[in-house]
Amino acid sequence: MDFSIRAANVEDCKDIARMITELAEYEKMADHVKVNQRDLEQDGFSKNPFFHGIMAEVPEQHKTKEGHTKIGYALYFYSYSSWKGRAVYMEDLYVMPEFRGKGIGKALMSKVAQLGLAAGCNQLNFTVLDWNKSSLDFYLSQGCFDVTANMGYHCMRCEGEALEHLAQP
Amino acid sequence: MDFSIRAANVEDCKDIARMITELAEYEKMADHVKVNQRDLEQDGFSKNPFFHGIMAEVPEQHKTKEGHTKIGYALYFYSYSSWKGRAVYMEDLYVMPEFRGKGIGKALMSKVAQLGLAAGCNQLNFTVLDWNKSSLDFYLSQGCFDVTANMGYHCMRCEGEALEHLAQP
Repeated sequence: MDFSIRAANVEDCKDIARMITELAEYEKMADHVKVNQRDLEQDGFSKNPFFHGIMAEVPEQHKTKEGHTKIGYALYFYSYSSWKGRAVYMEDLYVMPEFRGKGIGKALMSKVAQLGLAAGCNQLNFTVLDWNKSSLDFYLSQGCFDVTANMGYHCMRCEGEALEHLAQP
Repeated sequence: MDFSIRAANVEDCKDIARMITELAEYEKMADHVKVNQRDLEQDGFSKNPFFHGIMAEVPEQHKTKEGHTKIGYALYFYSYSSWKGRAVYMEDLYVMPEFRGKGIGKALMSKVAQLGLAAGCNQLNFTVLDWNKSSLDFYLSQGCFDVTANMGYHCMRCEGEALEHLAQP
């Protein structure tokens, strides 16, 4: 199947917001999504954006029954490793279920890797849910490794009232 | 003990590089450090920096026997959660051993939280090594939670030849 991969623009935010919710539903976390189309427009497409996006599109003749031609996306931002230097972090990688197994996810991730290398990055980092064996197997097949399992790093978070409290001098 | 907390500048890179190595030694990973003073100067203090820094300093009379007054640091960068929006990532938090237990680490982390909230961030994210119980206990005491243990997220990475290969179209 033909598909194209390109940088996201502000007009894509409606579809990105839709697919963020679809991905969260797949991860059984849909109630965690607070970001909407307008947030994405402001945070990703104004001066000093907090993230960048890549879109996967199919031609009209392959559109979904709901009429979607934007059928996958990746979100990423630049980050830093104090050991290895410049790095890129892939926040999301998603392809709608009916379009999986066609190399679209690989193409999206490859584009993030290309852009990262072009910016001088030495690492591509991301997370995966431990029960998501199909995604984990895909990532391992691409030469990625599990930093948590191999080195013992755990992701930690502070948010909400705890974050407000932590910020008190 | 008196100490001060302030934004890092390019003149701090020598001490940051020293303390990155000290932290890596503490984490038993010193052979992983490839970043040097010059990398930090270029990556953190030119246009579109990849990270920002916070320094902890003590007065001259409390300098170490090697003469150091810059005795702690935090590195952070802005990031994004596709569920919660703007976020800040704390890459490193370090206080030299002889200055621990005085609230300096808390003050550094608090400053990162303040700056994150001021930038509209809803989350502070970081990682901790699973065997580092004293750090884990400190973070939990601050209201942070273990995303890996509670939600099952594993940190994943692609680097080196695997990253080069992934970037091939």
